[in-house]
Amino acid sequence: MADYRQILVAVDFTPETEQITSRARELARQNGARVALVHVVELEVPSYPADLPLPGELDFSRRLLEQAGVSLKELAITHGLGEAKRYVESGSAKRVIVQLAEDTGADLIVLGSHGRHGLQRLLGDTAIGVLHRAPCDVLAVRIVQQ
Amino acid sequence: MADYRQILVAVDFTPETEQITSRARELARQNGARVALVHVVELEVPSYPADLPLPGELDFSRRLLEQAGVSLKELAITHGLGEAKRYVESGSAKRVIVQLAEDTGADLIVLGSHGRHGLQRLLGDTAIGVLHRAPCDVLAVRIVQQ
Repeated sequence: MADYRQILVAVDFTPETEQITSRARELARQNGARVALVHVVELEVPSYPADLPLPGELDFSRRLLEQAGVSLKELAITHGLGEAKRYVESGSAKRVIVQLAEDTGADLIVLGSHGRHGLQRLLGDTAIGVLHRAPCDVLAVRIVQQ
Repeated sequence: MADYRQILVAVDFTPETEQITSRARELARQNGARVALVHVVELEVPSYPADLPLPGELDFSRRLLEQAGVSLKELAITHGLGEAKRYVESGSAKRVIVQLAEDTGADLIVLGSHGRHGLQRLLGDTAIGVLHRAPCDVLAVRIVQQ
């Protein structure tokens, strides 16, 4: 069976992102694979004419996306993944991740598998949603609570 | 991050078992990990006194387990995994797999991620049940339909 060639890593900037990114980098090293990083802001950001002043909510959403872009770049550099493609998208995390896996020809998606309560549960649901729809293998990294 | 050391592979003897086992063997090779193989017969097999004639249903269940043991050994040898520990268990697949992962100290479970319909859907539900409860990482191998 062929090695993995293209790994898509979904990160959410929770403290566990370090574990997930480390695991993905290790797999990429073992397989000689390329890596792409994606963060999904789970807000819809509608298009808006550039020459009008932004409503507060829209401005907030855009700033979230910009900040995520900065954080994703920092994460990539910290983990020696400066060459990785980076994607910051808005929308439903599971849908965006699956679509991006298709668009980038990923043969492995790496994401966190969180617990059963509250926000942790929500993040776990993303993992399950991706598992249902993914066009490729999915590695759910079990989060070790610090 | 440490490599994987102990990989538990869940197989169901569908045609896709070859893909799953190949992937697990490759990961074991890359990581220098030990492998254990498990097949779960999703029937309850009650205990029964050895000196009484078996009722038909119980005899059938026992023969299923015996046949699975033979098939699992053949699979292991075919894939160069003759040294792998092999487990044939009865019960709920997701529960048995999670329990065995705990008992064997697995840090990765490899299983198939099937489609959305009929039997395929049922098998996918096992993957999701394992993902919910697993004490370790879970790799869901996307089945490529032949």
